[in-house]
Amino acid sequence: MNPYAVFHSIESAYSFPLSGKRFVLRVRVDKQDEIESCHVLYNAKHLFYLKRKEKEMTRKYEDDLYAYYEIILPLETPSLAYIFRFASEGKDFFFSTDGLTENYQFAISYYNYFQCAFVNDIDIQKEVSWAKDAIIYEIFVDRFHRGKGEGDKDFVNLRWGAIPNPKSFAGGSLIGLREKLDYLKDLGVNALYLTPIFRSISNHKYDIKDYYEVDPGFGSNVAFEELVKEAHERGMRIILDAVFNHVSEESAIFQDVVRNGRNSPYFDWFIIYDEDISKGKYEKFATCDYMPKWNTSNPAVQSYLCDIGKHYVKECGIDGWRLDVSDEISHDFWKRFRREIKAVNPDAMLIGENWQDATPYLRGDEFDGVMNYSFARYVNDYLAFRQLDSLAFKEKLEALRLRYRGPVTHMNWNLLDSHDTYRFFTQLRKNKERALIGAAIQMFYEGIPCVYYGDELPLEGGYDPDCRRCMDFSLARKSNPFFAKYRDLIRLRAKSGVLKYGELSLRTQDGMLVMERAYRGRVFALFVNLSEADKPLPLGKVVLSNLVEGETLKHEGFAIVANKRKTKE
Amino acid sequence: MNPYAVFHSIESAYSFPLSGKRFVLRVRVDKQDEIESCHVLYNAKHLFYLKRKEKEMTRKYEDDLYAYYEIILPLETPSLAYIFRFASEGKDFFFSTDGLTENYQFAISYYNYFQCAFVNDIDIQKEVSWAKDAIIYEIFVDRFHRGKGEGDKDFVNLRWGAIPNPKSFAGGSLIGLREKLDYLKDLGVNALYLTPIFRSISNHKYDIKDYYEVDPGFGSNVAFEELVKEAHERGMRIILDAVFNHVSEESAIFQDVVRNGRNSPYFDWFIIYDEDISKGKYEKFATCDYMPKWNTSNPAVQSYLCDIGKHYVKECGIDGWRLDVSDEISHDFWKRFRREIKAVNPDAMLIGENWQDATPYLRGDEFDGVMNYSFARYVNDYLAFRQLDSLAFKEKLEALRLRYRGPVTHMNWNLLDSHDTYRFFTQLRKNKERALIGAAIQMFYEGIPCVYYGDELPLEGGYDPDCRRCMDFSLARKSNPFFAKYRDLIRLRAKSGVLKYGELSLRTQDGMLVMERAYRGRVFALFVNLSEADKPLPLGKVVLSNLVEGETLKHEGFAIVANKRKTKE
Repeated sequence: MNPYAVFHSIESAYSFPLSGKRFVLRVRVDKQDEIESCHVLYNAKHLFYLKRKEKEMTRKYEDDLYAYYEIILPLETPSLAYIFRFASEGKDFFFSTDGLTENYQFAISYYNYFQCAFVNDIDIQKEVSWAKDAIIYEIFVDRFHRGKGEGDKDFVNLRWGAIPNPKSFAGGSLIGLREKLDYLKDLGVNALYLTPIFRSISNHKYDIKDYYEVDPGFGSNVAFEELVKEAHERGMRIILDAVFNHVSEESAIFQDVVRNGRNSPYFDWFIIYDEDISKGKYEKFATCDYMPKWNTSNPAVQSYLCDIGKHYVKECGIDGWRLDVSDEISHDFWKRFRREIKAVNPDAMLIGENWQDATPYLRGDEFDGVMNYSFARYVNDYLAFRQLDSLAFKEKLEALRLRYRGPVTHMNWNLLDSHDTYRFFTQLRKNKERALIGAAIQMFYEGIPCVYYGDELPLEGGYDPDCRRCMDFSLARKSNPFFAKYRDLIRLRAKSGVLKYGELSLRTQDGMLVMERAYRGRVFALFVNLSEADKPLPLGKVVLSNLVEGETLKHEGFAIVANKRKTKE
Repeated sequence: MNPYAVFHSIESAYSFPLSGKRFVLRVRVDKQDEIESCHVLYNAKHLFYLKRKEKEMTRKYEDDLYAYYEIILPLETPSLAYIFRFASEGKDFFFSTDGLTENYQFAISYYNYFQCAFVNDIDIQKEVSWAKDAIIYEIFVDRFHRGKGEGDKDFVNLRWGAIPNPKSFAGGSLIGLREKLDYLKDLGVNALYLTPIFRSISNHKYDIKDYYEVDPGFGSNVAFEELVKEAHERGMRIILDAVFNHVSEESAIFQDVVRNGRNSPYFDWFIIYDEDISKGKYEKFATCDYMPKWNTSNPAVQSYLCDIGKHYVKECGIDGWRLDVSDEISHDFWKRFRREIKAVNPDAMLIGENWQDATPYLRGDEFDGVMNYSFARYVNDYLAFRQLDSLAFKEKLEALRLRYRGPVTHMNWNLLDSHDTYRFFTQLRKNKERALIGAAIQMFYEGIPCVYYGDELPLEGGYDPDCRRCMDFSLARKSNPFFAKYRDLIRLRAKSGVLKYGELSLRTQDGMLVMERAYRGRVFALFVNLSEADKPLPLGKVVLSNLVEGETLKHEGFAIVANKRKTKE
């Protein structure tokens, strides 16, 4: 066996409880090793040295280098000590914190077994109850819809549908959005993520002047409350954008510092190297002087921001926060934020904007999940940039779903694009078939699909601000075949227990990507058949021999097969 | 390069800030790979895609499989994005979150660089200010010393010096201990860790009946306050044993549950499966019915235990807590405990009793360090069980110091034995030379030496209760050569900035283990020369050619060379 490849880690994606009675264990090996079997040897911590149970693990995942064995272990008591045993090359290998060894001394094992010494209920990472049912729809408010009679607002400087620049105001509003709730309901999405809505001079409103006031251009606090109410009446949830990394230079708090320097009670609310603010020597978002960074190490700032977070959950009934630039804010703050928010509503969803590996934020005491930009990247690499073939893409998806613990994977927002990226459709050089394949992959993958407004039409758009064009509802009709198919895909996910709750398995077959989800004896399979170059091929190669009595939803380039099949469970 | 070996992980022992301006990075490779150089390419997060600085890293550590490159990176701004570049096999390899690749696209690097997007001050793991100066001395109170006139206590059933059984009471007390403070001061230790002192019917007092009362057999609350005062007057610190996993069945709280079952307000303070307590169906420490386990998921229990923790720090001025059975208590509790204790005294030291890999507890938001039982194991394997030769032992020590972030490594308690293990001297089959070598290794290693009372004599003892024999002060005199040498070793550490603050490097030379610490141009080197079998050899093989003008402290089997040498710094 390749000793460099074998890996396990306690309290991680490799070892986490689902409850006090069910525990997930994974162990990684070189996928080229010839391994006959992998067993976990385990018992309650205080009994392990005396005797062990053993269970065979299942080889379940493979990425580019590694294979992963997995088991969901039933626990009789909420205590677990364990090591792994592999049969390979005609002998046994043991894997403990001392690495891969051919012998193992159980009598002194308390030095080197793996363990979760006691599964304390409060440490079990729980899924937000509605996570597996959710389909998110991201809305850039200024560009989504103007309400009736809102077209003549004096700040509006963009003709609806014209190409926006960084200073454009198109006049989209909360009242306009409310008028489109039925559209969204019909589309099949059930949770709306709104980019910031609080008072700000910009169109994007990521530079907030007052967190407690809805921007007058977007409506009013009352209009927001009505939006939440009407969304909830339709079974739809509302998630707001928590811009807690920085604030507008126009905020009263920062202006107090501008005026009073070190004498301001708010001086330590920021990270300032020279009290002459005009010199710009303070921490800010990126290189933007107009967005001074909050000092989230300061308990007073923490209280201020936590209070805002709680206010909208408690008083307005919002269903969660998307956390802007979450990777630049202190862990200490996020831990407190989670404690305080979850105390108000344990089902409020907290989703970080971490583009990178976010493991340190996803251990159950900070976020529920993140915006899954790695997913977006891999889908783009597969379908747009052709950097990954079906097998390589499958391997990336496999590694990605194992990056975090199960509950996190189920709460990550799987997006194809956002207000911070090129539109997926534009990356695809307007290949509609591939845009639909992307959406199909999104609907089949583990985690929460996150549709960016207009992707269903589709809208085009390059980098910010081009990716923030106006919604075009004239394309949102059944006679637009793209829209009809896109809606089919969203609705399939929305209505199908198989796609929402089913176990995912990934494979390739004759060069096709195959994504299967199985649930209560039913299987939905997605076959993706990419041609060479830009021309999608028909489904000549789809092999259905092992799938009988199925309904098939066919598009060019891919097929979804819904099927009743005996599964192993 | 071996792609299976290359490893890095954000916010871990591989990546942590020392301050907003200094950041430690480590990357792991196959030690057999022929690598010409390893560079880190880095910049502030928002600038990385545009341009990078680069610095060469130093190959600094090797264990059995891996080599580790390290750099302490100076940061101009508290933001860091980075990848690694290796020169090997005549080409460049890049290492990012996408693994080892021969190409790297900086333009889209925001998907796959490593980062600490912003070093928030509150997240920087700080060392307790006195950690590097500390030498701990663990005292099992009943067996350390009886005060004058305390010999006739009616509960005492063990003649001082006789072999104890599990029910033995020898009559050691806090007053007795206080009488020996000058002895301890002279010995060179400066922090006393006392096993539990609160009211309990056992000799070990790990089954506490009342956390707010010092056990009458040990003295009184006043006696304890005087002990703290007198210790502090001598510059010595006091650390108590926080037995927060479980309590005595005799505690008033548990007795309320025994009497009232589900109707007790304390029912949920435990984890009870059958309200008829006599059936024993509740969670407990190991299999001990008399030690019911606290439900540390319950906020009321958390408050109760945190209040105890704070009380002794605040009211009695203790300097820290050793955390009993810390691995079975909820993370949620420990995070709260740390917040509350550190708010009272940031310099109160919190040390977990985790025998296994304790990474999840050592991320800066729970413990400062742990009792380093892995260190004890490796020293025993090297010197007692002969499972490791000098090279293998050196490799274990190297991996162990890289297991946690730097500040943790500097706060771990490096012990050879404790009240829960065989005495080291007994494991050594009474080989005094090797006992001294063990102590020398302990004094040279990174982290806090933790001497178990009597190891300096030495005392013998098998497993509990034999390892808890009575202290024999008649052996604690200069005419006992073992004691004199042991004291020399402790004092060398206590007085030497080199051993306390010096950078550690480990190597082997002609079969010897060499541990060097370098500080401000001075180097102390420990040479360990083990013979075959049980006979320690003199130091014939020690090579001093590159060490001039040094003072040498020689013992059989090892030598310590204190030297002025030009170092690279």
